[in-house]
Amino acid sequence: MSDGDIFTGEVIGTAILILFGAGVCAAVTLRHSKARAAGWVVIAFGWGFGVLAGAYTAAPLSGGQLNPAVTIGIAVDTGVWGKVWVYLLGQFTGAVLGAVLTYLVYLAQFRANVPDADTAEEPTPTLGIFSTIPEIRNPLANLVTEIIATIALVLPVLAFGLTKGLGESGTTVLIVCLLVVGIGLSLGGPTGYAINPARDLGPRIVHSFLPIPNKGTSDWGYAWIPVVGPLIGGALAGLVYHVAF
Amino acid sequence: MSDGDIFTGEVIGTAILILFGAGVCAAVTLRHSKARAAGWVVIAFGWGFGVLAGAYTAAPLSGGQLNPAVTIGIAVDTGVWGKVWVYLLGQFTGAVLGAVLTYLVYLAQFRANVPDADTAEEPTPTLGIFSTIPEIRNPLANLVTEIIATIALVLPVLAFGLTKGLGESGTTVLIVCLLVVGIGLSLGGPTGYAINPARDLGPRIVHSFLPIPNKGTSDWGYAWIPVVGPLIGGALAGLVYHVAF
Amino acid sequence: MSDGDIFTGEVIGTAILILFGAGVCAAVTLRHSKARAAGWVVIAFGWGFGVLAGAYTAAPLSGGQLNPAVTIGIAVDTGVWGKVWVYLLGQFTGAVLGAVLTYLVYLAQFRANVPDADTAEEPTPTLGIFSTIPEIRNPLANLVTEIIATIALVLPVLAFGLTKGLGESGTTVLIVCLLVVGIGLSLGGPTGYAINPARDLGPRIVHSFLPIPNKGTSDWGYAWIPVVGPLIGGALAGLVYHVAF
Amino acid sequence: MSDGDIFTGEVIGTAILILFGAGVCAAVTLRHSKARAAGWVVIAFGWGFGVLAGAYTAAPLSGGQLNPAVTIGIAVDTGVWGKVWVYLLGQFTGAVLGAVLTYLVYLAQFRANVPDADTAEEPTPTLGIFSTIPEIRNPLANLVTEIIATIALVLPVLAFGLTKGLGESGTTVLIVCLLVVGIGLSLGGPTGYAINPARDLGPRIVHSFLPIPNKGTSDWGYAWIPVVGPLIGGALAGLVYHVAF
Repeated sequence: MSDGDIFTGEVIGTAILILFGAGVCAAVTLRHSKARAAGWVVIAFGWGFGVLAGAYTAAPLSGGQLNPAVTIGIAVDTGVWGKVWVYLLGQFTGAVLGAVLTYLVYLAQFRANVPDADTAEEPTPTLGIFSTIPEIRNPLANLVTEIIATIALVLPVLAFGLTKGLGESGTTVLIVCLLVVGIGLSLGGPTGYAINPARDLGPRIVHSFLPIPNKGTSDWGYAWIPVVGPLIGGALAGLVYHVAF
Repeated sequence: MSDGDIFTGEVIGTAILILFGAGVCAAVTLRHSKARAAGWVVIAFGWGFGVLAGAYTAAPLSGGQLNPAVTIGIAVDTGVWGKVWVYLLGQFTGAVLGAVLTYLVYLAQFRANVPDADTAEEPTPTLGIFSTIPEIRNPLANLVTEIIATIALVLPVLAFGLTKGLGESGTTVLIVCLLVVGIGLSLGGPTGYAINPARDLGPRIVHSFLPIPNKGTSDWGYAWIPVVGPLIGGALAGLVYHVAF
Repeated sequence: MSDGDIFTGEVIGTAILILFGAGVCAAVTLRHSKARAAGWVVIAFGWGFGVLAGAYTAAPLSGGQLNPAVTIGIAVDTGVWGKVWVYLLGQFTGAVLGAVLTYLVYLAQFRANVPDADTAEEPTPTLGIFSTIPEIRNPLANLVTEIIATIALVLPVLAFGLTKGLGESGTTVLIVCLLVVGIGLSLGGPTGYAINPARDLGPRIVHSFLPIPNKGTSDWGYAWIPVVGPLIGGALAGLVYHVAF
Repeated sequence: MSDGDIFTGEVIGTAILILFGAGVCAAVTLRHSKARAAGWVVIAFGWGFGVLAGAYTAAPLSGGQLNPAVTIGIAVDTGVWGKVWVYLLGQFTGAVLGAVLTYLVYLAQFRANVPDADTAEEPTPTLGIFSTIPEIRNPLANLVTEIIATIALVLPVLAFGLTKGLGESGTTVLIVCLLVVGIGLSLGGPTGYAINPARDLGPRIVHSFLPIPNKGTSDWGYAWIPVVGPLIGGALAGLVYHVAF
């Protein structure tokens, strides 16, 4: 795979991932959305199907990693680091693009995020649509949650033989999609499961710039945890896989 | 594939798609339905499984495209336009047939769509069972939503290799089914995700003729958006695919 | 396949189907069940996974048809009727066995189906756990619903190539499972989607004999519809498939 | 497969299974979790995706049995008992490890399990996160429920050809995952479906030691049922399979 193909694949794939993932958070959060308050099961499946859509689309170009934690885990296992920067650049670029697309899909809803004249309902804080927010703010506990949840993603992905080529495998991405749904259902409770530095940081940057009324804080004080935690988790998973398998 | 097989396949497949899709909207909307108020997750999975049922059934005859946006996207990518009109004719015919079948399945419920003598509950508007209605009426924003959501359908479908023959592939339709569930969950909030001109226009025509009590408006003022938006989205996806892949 | 293998396979497979299907209805209906009131999505997925479990288990012995409507549809298409009686005998026997197993799984819950001393809550009618009950009682409309819903099952099953051998196909049963979930979500609203004469009649017989307190009527006046409707639907699907494909 | 590989595979796989399974129970039960009260469908899918993640990860090392009832069922069918102790040792060790990991993921939530100063809400009993609790305490009925539910797991698993090698099969684990979701939805109502002695006993031991405030009883009086019931069920399934197939 050429650097250009890798970059293009990761941009398109990660943009689709974030479009679905941030999209489902918008769908469930914003007023005047048909899916409002549809619940956690919808969030978890929405993110999982985002992996499905993004990874299958990117597979012929880049293999569809879409996540720096996966890329780092593969590099730690294989010892091959030469293309890592291309993957990461594509992933962060795609995450930014996906967040902007989500904003456009829900444009009317974001613009209507003002106090409701009829019901006196307050506007909705919007950071949770783009990035993760912990339920209990405790840096060490939050970091541990993200590390273990990322290991629970990357170790199975490595064992599934993802590294042997996504493009050839008819069901691998489907299984990874359901794995991500499972992580959301089971391990997403405390921090909202970033498990992907690009998924959290890219949309947070976009959130800080978008002209959304009453958008609330971009919470930069927390931003390092969903970046550092998944990177540690991905590296640890690569290490465990390299030793145990 | 002969023109006759393509037409037959698209009629049967699209009829099944609409039977499941309009069916699940009836199931969740109408009084005296066991699934009433079962929520957005049921809507999204119902439409997705409609794709599954319709596309697998149509696959041996026509490849199971079932959606003018997909057909246009393939034509833009391949430059082959000769059979497009057969596909589109089959898709619109099938959508009309599917809407009539849904009416028959829920016949007793539609007939009971009158003020409830016991509870004084008002009858349910019925257009939402057949066609899409935006939550916030804003033509430009609604159009953008439909365009992006349709790109999120057609670009992955092209990349999945759908054009290489549905009939041979055991899991391709399954993946497209889950992709459609994901679009519903994530991108359906603002407009109800037509993402398919036949899916919206065919049932809207049927709605305008059916003798349903208190059926409400067929909202023809909005009808162009779920036709034009998906056509633009399908064409753009074909273009992006042609250039990037 | 020998008559003995077909009979054994259909008994075991249909018993598992009904154990899961009646089981999920018990889970959602009965007091002192962890899944009580879990909603229609749980019902639909529970029945679908019953098809998955039953059909995969029966596949090496009998091909896993588990449904007289499917058996009739295949016979109408192929013109081969010699083994039909073995399939049907196995399916009805298995349905009876499955209903008894469900009773045993929920034994303590069924025995506790008496007025609640603390909350004064009334006992739950139990026929809906075993057999279907229409929301609006209208024989012709109910029959039409069952016919169309059964066509929506059997036509795709025939087109999926089910008749070409379940045992060889890794994903066919999975697709049929999701198809059945979709029928439940989309077409189950009016009558509870029998779409299988054995699934309704076998458990209804069991219900009429079981010593469940406050079990309510077995509603024999309705019993012919979920038998005749699916048989007509299966035969029509076989005919359409034979002509169109 | 060497004893070391089997042990390593079963430890890692069962740890992942319990991390997802106990994790989803924590997600739905504990205060300050984003998935709180998300319902039974979330529990059932969370456990199922735990099987998916754990079994695919363990497959290349040990075949991914992760459950003494499955191991016993295979041994009864094949008559080969030599490696059974390695599997069981790995499974119980993995279950203990998985319960500890779950505790770490939800550390902040467990520490906050004290009376809420603002809402006066009482702390949550925590045993249900780790082990099963019957809705109606009736040893014989509870045992029968666990036996039948375990047969409904192990008989299909044997028939799916699980014993012929998980590693080669792309979709077998996916099907077993959905089977486990189905058992949860349909047969989990009375006892919470242990259907796996390691899954219940390992985390119960961990629960009895963990320093969780207001953790409540570890209910050792019930602990034998989710061990003995699944072992009987697994053995019976092996016997039925050996005779009927």
